[in-house]
Amino acid sequence: MIRTHDAGSLRATDAGTTVTLAGWVARRRDHGGVIFVDLRDGSGVVQVVFREEDAHALRNEYCVKVVGEVTRRPEGNENPELPTGEIEVTASELDVLSEAAPLPLPVDDQVVAGDDIRLKYRYLDLRRSGPAKAMRLRSRANQLARTVLHERDFLEIETPTLTRSTPEGARDFLVPVRLQPGSWYALPQSPQLFKQLLMVGGMERYYQIARCYRDEDFRADRQPEFTQLDIEMSFVTEDDVIDLGEAIVSALWSDLAGYEIPRPIPRITWHDAMARYGSDKPDLRYGVELTELTDYLRGTTFRVFAGAIDAGGYVGAVVMPGGASQTRKELDGWQDWAKARGAKGLAYVVLDAETGEARGPVAKNLSAEHLNGLADAVGAKPGDAIFFAASAETREAQELLGAARIEIAKRAGLIDESAWAFCWVVDAPMFERTSDESGAADGWTAVHHPFTSPNSEWVDRFEEAPDRALAYAYDIVCNGNEIGGGSIRIHRRDVQQRVFDLLGITPEEAQDKFGFLLEAFSYGPPPHGGIAFGWDRVCMLLAGADSIREVIAFPKTRGGFDPLTGAPTPITAQQRTEAGIDAKPKPTQAPHPGTAGPAAPVADPT
Amino acid sequence: MIRTHDAGSLRATDAGTTVTLAGWVARRRDHGGVIFVDLRDGSGVVQVVFREEDAHALRNEYCVKVVGEVTRRPEGNENPELPTGEIEVTASELDVLSEAAPLPLPVDDQVVAGDDIRLKYRYLDLRRSGPAKAMRLRSRANQLARTVLHERDFLEIETPTLTRSTPEGARDFLVPVRLQPGSWYALPQSPQLFKQLLMVGGMERYYQIARCYRDEDFRADRQPEFTQLDIEMSFVTEDDVIDLGEAIVSALWSDLAGYEIPRPIPRITWHDAMARYGSDKPDLRYGVELTELTDYLRGTTFRVFAGAIDAGGYVGAVVMPGGASQTRKELDGWQDWAKARGAKGLAYVVLDAETGEARGPVAKNLSAEHLNGLADAVGAKPGDAIFFAASAETREAQELLGAARIEIAKRAGLIDESAWAFCWVVDAPMFERTSDESGAADGWTAVHHPFTSPNSEWVDRFEEAPDRALAYAYDIVCNGNEIGGGSIRIHRRDVQQRVFDLLGITPEEAQDKFGFLLEAFSYGPPPHGGIAFGWDRVCMLLAGADSIREVIAFPKTRGGFDPLTGAPTPITAQQRTEAGIDAKPKPTQAPHPGTAGPAAPVADPT
Repeated sequence: MIRTHDAGSLRATDAGTTVTLAGWVARRRDHGGVIFVDLRDGSGVVQVVFREEDAHALRNEYCVKVVGEVTRRPEGNENPELPTGEIEVTASELDVLSEAAPLPLPVDDQVVAGDDIRLKYRYLDLRRSGPAKAMRLRSRANQLARTVLHERDFLEIETPTLTRSTPEGARDFLVPVRLQPGSWYALPQSPQLFKQLLMVGGMERYYQIARCYRDEDFRADRQPEFTQLDIEMSFVTEDDVIDLGEAIVSALWSDLAGYEIPRPIPRITWHDAMARYGSDKPDLRYGVELTELTDYLRGTTFRVFAGAIDAGGYVGAVVMPGGASQTRKELDGWQDWAKARGAKGLAYVVLDAETGEARGPVAKNLSAEHLNGLADAVGAKPGDAIFFAASAETREAQELLGAARIEIAKRAGLIDESAWAFCWVVDAPMFERTSDESGAADGWTAVHHPFTSPNSEWVDRFEEAPDRALAYAYDIVCNGNEIGGGSIRIHRRDVQQRVFDLLGITPEEAQDKFGFLLEAFSYGPPPHGGIAFGWDRVCMLLAGADSIREVIAFPKTRGGFDPLTGAPTPITAQQRTEAGIDAKPKPTQAPHPGTAGPAAPVADPT
Repeated sequence: MIRTHDAGSLRATDAGTTVTLAGWVARRRDHGGVIFVDLRDGSGVVQVVFREEDAHALRNEYCVKVVGEVTRRPEGNENPELPTGEIEVTASELDVLSEAAPLPLPVDDQVVAGDDIRLKYRYLDLRRSGPAKAMRLRSRANQLARTVLHERDFLEIETPTLTRSTPEGARDFLVPVRLQPGSWYALPQSPQLFKQLLMVGGMERYYQIARCYRDEDFRADRQPEFTQLDIEMSFVTEDDVIDLGEAIVSALWSDLAGYEIPRPIPRITWHDAMARYGSDKPDLRYGVELTELTDYLRGTTFRVFAGAIDAGGYVGAVVMPGGASQTRKELDGWQDWAKARGAKGLAYVVLDAETGEARGPVAKNLSAEHLNGLADAVGAKPGDAIFFAASAETREAQELLGAARIEIAKRAGLIDESAWAFCWVVDAPMFERTSDESGAADGWTAVHHPFTSPNSEWVDRFEEAPDRALAYAYDIVCNGNEIGGGSIRIHRRDVQQRVFDLLGITPEEAQDKFGFLLEAFSYGPPPHGGIAFGWDRVCMLLAGADSIREVIAFPKTRGGFDPLTGAPTPITAQQRTEAGIDAKPKPTQAPHPGTAGPAAPVADPT
């Protein structure tokens, strides 16, 4: 090593030691004949004192080697903010390892730079303490998760990333295959298929920190490539997978956030989550629960509510504490907010802070009886606002109220940003209705994927009420973010066949879509299930960051552009020809009975 | 968990315990009223005894759950071959979790199946003990390497796999980008560029078990995607990287092969390796060194030798112990062997086992004096054969003899298959001559890549003798396999400029090819270097396998075909349109000064 000591490790007990340091000039201050330099390396910062004539050429971010003696700082000059603040290094030798041109991005934690410039010069950005810390955190998170998994005899197994296209699922990234012109690989959306095949292969306990690819339209905080901690286990029940998931998040939050997650982590059913929080990923850092008013308001003459009730739908409300003090403009703002979400508006009443009297546009439309009992029915106090949603589609109204709930918590300052609130959302529905072009119901589709197992209560009779049948499917939620999810898979052929029948998948279609997985399942598949954590999001939360880009070394901007390398780029005509991009595919190789299906038809929904 | 105990863990001390097991029917034997089943799970095998009426339906590879009591086997029926051989489980309950169709591939360690059928039914193949063990070994290898690296404060950092195309290097796999129609990502041939950028970013110690992609013609034992353990360090010398590399292989071989590698691992210079073994990755499990005879044979009238000597080339020999006893047919076989390698033939003499007299085609052409001293000159004994190579190109002749050396070791049974022999090949040449179409020398090219640092002896004067200049480049070799390699990189701008000058790369070309890396290097890059291990090959050697496919969960066959999923496949017209494959690229985005270069121009040569 070029250095003998790490800059950030020096302490008063090192005084008198001659050290060789190597790092970067973080800051330079000239004091008549003497130059003070903050020398930064991966371990931290130490103050180095040079004679002016030795160091006058030094500029920010020069990379230097320094030999010097550790000395105690003169009394009164200690810096208690700095771990090395009791000492400084008096330089006797300076070696400029490399110079730095004027910086396009100051290496300074105080400076707020735009994302584009930060990513274009990511190598300078990473020298700042925040981004550097995020990289260290992520590395440590990997290590912590792996420790939990290895203690439990999990095998780390790599699965292919050049695999088979899945025309049915989300869009695949495609890769032309030069050696089989006209044929293409797909990059996997998840290792789902392969991890299930590993279970059939008797591997019993698999994990992988796996790169996954989805060619989606770029929403905020999406990357074309992302990482999941992918896990699958054989001979397990839902409780086993949940227990493992808790062990992992507990280890992560204990070590990296200093937070001991109370266990067991509460479980809430999907239906309860929708009813109480209007979300399948409720943020439990605050209350503000929804109240269903469908029965309470039955018989109302208010057209909006009555219509929903008569259609067998739902009317509900959510209370904004202190919301009555909002200005007319603020209350109008809620209408804009609701319209931006695609709703017609957001009905409300406000309760007078003094009298508790209900006012506002909806108040006029409700009977005295309904108005009088309203505060009690929804748990509101004088000075609160009550927002309503009504729809023939229960879920639609609940989701609007759920979104309002989040917005209320933000506007009313109800979120304790230092709090952590975890829950499992379990008992997710198996199926939801599909509709034809006219909007009429015409069948069923799988909410997760067609290999998700119905739970024991429904496995023998899900056909009786597909809309109510529940799956062994579970998501883990942290502060309103879904950070992981998975399911127990079907391993019984008869059950699988019945699910296909309900979904209207014929044997021929099943063979075509899922052939090789089904074939594998004909050779003694074990009961199995798993989970996948959205690793970027987990690390983002642990880092206290507001975007997954903060925990990715070289993220892309919107549209999948990399400001650093300039990727993607056009290719040359020669590359195009060589890669066989325009070749007609040859007649297929002797088809494998059961290989006509997609490589990764299904994915843990993270 | 469905089971209470692992089948393979049961011992005599468990006798009397009621256990629930879950696994596969590995073998069934019927004995009048009683059925013995070997029940296999991930932990091993145990014998389960059923009453015939309970288990008559069981077939091989049914997945079952069994409740039973652990009992000592009747005296004389113990199986000392099996860890569970003292006991058996007397079943009281049987639950068939899933049935198995007749097997296309018996799950039997004795059966030798073809690769195609094994890979098509890889999930059955993985149930066999050999493949299962290989997966466990690889998982453990990852863990061991990571432990070494984390103990040394390395950070695990993921680098992008959707990156920029490098038209200059080996062929890239390409990925069309739907959101920027006409533009393409490339899959990285290695994380080389990004790991150097991480060093510029002050990360100091990086590693990643990284998936890499090269679109090569399929030679034996190549996969389109492969894995390397990729490492880069700042502020280090060659010795530091070598020391780390030794720590990693030592940990691996100690734990997984029960072999303590003597350290330090011997270092041999590239030139010595070529001179003594005719290879830059010498197999040191046996001797059979090359002898240069250029001086010894100077003045010979034998045209083949004289021509090489007069051209300033090389004549050398390698001895096959006992080779004189080969039949004429066997000796002729060597000529075919040499021709298959592209040589004209392989000159030889054999030394009579009794008299030591030299015979054979070459003997007639050599003077008595040359013949008399020959055995001593090459270290041959009566009964040996001596093979010669001569060429105006020293390396060409050495490589032929090096290949003959390996073949000799095989044919003469000189290889101790249980031995491990490691070495570092260091001091690799910086440059080699390029030639124009007529074959005339016209310049220089970098042997590794243009960022590899000349060593301290040459850094200030490599222009004086580019053909002799040496690099800080090193490969680690195990039993004749290059398992890792790397270099110290250039971090001084002046040195980089001189290397470009020698290579005939103009500033404009450098900017175009390596722009964004060079730009990063203008902001205080630290001295740095690294290594990459070919992880598939490392695991292959540790597993005692003869192909990397044995240590890959789902490998591809030649041509990149996956017999299991049928990938690659044609894509639909809709996919083609959506992916923008045929779109004309738009005028480029505002170009980043210095982003015109390749994303991964350079790669550790593994």
